[in-house]
Amino acid sequence: MTTLHASALSAPPAPAIPALTEPLSPEDLANALRSFSTSYYASHPFHALMHEGKLTRRQLQGWVANRLAYQRAIPRKDAAILSNCSDPDVRREWILRIVDHDGTETGTGGIEKWIALGEALGVPRIEMEDERHVLPGVRFAAEAYVTFCKTKPWIDAVASSLTELFAPDLMRRRIAAFPQHYSWVRPEALDYFKTRLTQAPRDSQQGLALVQRHCTTVETQRRAFDALAFKLEMLWVMIDTIHHAYAEA
Amino acid sequence: MTTLHASALSAPPAPAIPALTEPLSPEDLANALRSFSTSYYASHPFHALMHEGKLTRRQLQGWVANRLAYQRAIPRKDAAILSNCSDPDVRREWILRIVDHDGTETGTGGIEKWIALGEALGVPRIEMEDERHVLPGVRFAAEAYVTFCKTKPWIDAVASSLTELFAPDLMRRRIAAFPQHYSWVRPEALDYFKTRLTQAPRDSQQGLALVQRHCTTVETQRRAFDALAFKLEMLWVMIDTIHHAYAEA
Repeated sequence: MTTLHASALSAPPAPAIPALTEPLSPEDLANALRSFSTSYYASHPFHALMHEGKLTRRQLQGWVANRLAYQRAIPRKDAAILSNCSDPDVRREWILRIVDHDGTETGTGGIEKWIALGEALGVPRIEMEDERHVLPGVRFAAEAYVTFCKTKPWIDAVASSLTELFAPDLMRRRIAAFPQHYSWVRPEALDYFKTRLTQAPRDSQQGLALVQRHCTTVETQRRAFDALAFKLEMLWVMIDTIHHAYAEA
Repeated sequence: MTTLHASALSAPPAPAIPALTEPLSPEDLANALRSFSTSYYASHPFHALMHEGKLTRRQLQGWVANRLAYQRAIPRKDAAILSNCSDPDVRREWILRIVDHDGTETGTGGIEKWIALGEALGVPRIEMEDERHVLPGVRFAAEAYVTFCKTKPWIDAVASSLTELFAPDLMRRRIAAFPQHYSWVRPEALDYFKTRLTQAPRDSQQGLALVQRHCTTVETQRRAFDALAFKLEMLWVMIDTIHHAYAEA
């Protein structure tokens, strides 16, 4: 018998899923979910390189072109949540995420801002839009997220969205790092990060409140932890796939 | 061998699906889809009774309470279409249907207007909302529609929505029949029908344009015809189930 060790980079640091014997209080549930931040993909070495100004133009371009597949998956996963949710009050809140990401007319919204970031990093719009640079591993991860949200109870899918709790810190680090280290990138390119800086806290508070309200049993709380762990893995696989694909010799 | 004849009421009059050997022009496709109106559930005897003022209060109440299951399924099927559609331009148009039906705050939107109709017909709100009167056959039909939209290509699901081409005529007949024959129903109750009178033509034009643009091959046009035929069956099964369940001795 051999013990098979995969690269430490192939999955995120395992989050501390509490061994529940009775349900956590809403506050303890929130704290336990927040503690998953140590497994967030911000701790992947690719992000350290990004924030230290050590990524090449090619690496940044590979990153921005690939992440578009994820950006494009987001409204579809949010619509899947709506399609599984029977509560109009929840749908009425949640639908705003789709509007944020798709915009209200052509050329607006989060996906468009991400394409603008790609252009500012020197990837032609056509090469962003036709996804020619998107790696199969990244595509599979993004599709796994849509499938998760289509096939799981809507509250599990809401729990998986709680990586947004950790997003603002990452956005702030990017907004600081880009002008400092990548001065060839035009400042307007950072619109996406700035928008998420205000949207992510609103979204994550909304998602957290739903999870606190609906996950009040051991079983539903376990499912919430599992859902967030799945999402952490999914984000991690994307960044790790990008990391290896564009590593400089 | 015996020939097994089901009741003529158990399915709608079969629509005339053209035997395609080459693709129809966009105009011919629209005309062929419009010709399906003869299979619309408006031709079910229950509607004739309704428009002639021959339904009892109990029958109208059974109808309104059961149809809520369908009303509630609509935003979920529309979200399923969004979740399967990669085109933000299409999503941006289609999302308005969800907003129409869910409203923008508690107490607004099409579902709420349907509940108000139920109350005006004498079904207490609580008995509408908890769906105690919803028959299993009606529930299965409504769920089949959501499942269709989740599992078929989004353009098939769009084609299935084209029963809206036929809706305004039915709405007009209801708006005329209710004050004439059912004077005990308050006029405000008809808000739902009046709203659909303007929304349905906008929606069906939008849906038809999408089907004309995307169904340009024999195969995709066949699928569009099949999808609309499925929807006609689904609406028919609902009204027929209601018809039999509340038949007066």
